[in-house]
Amino acid sequence: MSEFTNVTVVREANVYFNGGVTSRTVIFPDGTKKTLGIMLPGEYTFNTGAAELMEILSGELDLKRPGSDLWDRIGGGESFDVPANSSFTMKVLAVTDYCCSFLA
Amino acid sequence: MSEFTNVTVVREANVYFNGGVTSRTVIFPDGTKKTLGIMLPGEYTFNTGAAELMEILSGELDLKRPGSDLWDRIGGGESFDVPANSSFTMKVLAVTDYCCSFLA
Repeated sequence: MSEFTNVTVVREANVYFNGGVTSRTVIFPDGTKKTLGIMLPGEYTFNTGAAELMEILSGELDLKRPGSDLWDRIGGGESFDVPANSSFTMKVLAVTDYCCSFLA
Repeated sequence: MSEFTNVTVVREANVYFNGGVTSRTVIFPDGTKKTLGIMLPGEYTFNTGAAELMEILSGELDLKRPGSDLWDRIGGGESFDVPANSSFTMKVLAVTDYCCSFLA
């Protein structure tokens, strides 16, 4: 297990796709934010504002990156970057636990 | 929105019932713990170790308390206590966001 210490956690969840994707917002002392989330099996398309680093803590998904028609298999322990102001699609194959970092 | 400040958050999620119920553990400076969780529609039975206070942040469920055959409707903004070392069943009717406090 790993931890984030000395942080602020927003109590209310972020809920997307009727609960297919849910997360909690964690705010760090330097003002940066991450979300810790769960994705259930299904297909989801997200749009980014800021660039994001998605760390897959456990689970499995196929990822279609912005502007690509290819699908990449991503598993637990792996991560991927998503550029700012772009869109990406995931086919989640198993319950997936993730940490999303919002990059300046 | 409300927040917990100056806390520790365990990165990895707690996952139950194939993702039907998932939560994050939040540890407070005094060592006490809460979990912030999401329940998707479905029926779930949990066993308690320590006594628990379940605060329903949003959503709706029917609750069968330990030793009772009656179902109580619980909605967002409401809460219920569960004694230590007991079992309770919930029929979750809508995506439900909760905060569970573990009482000494």
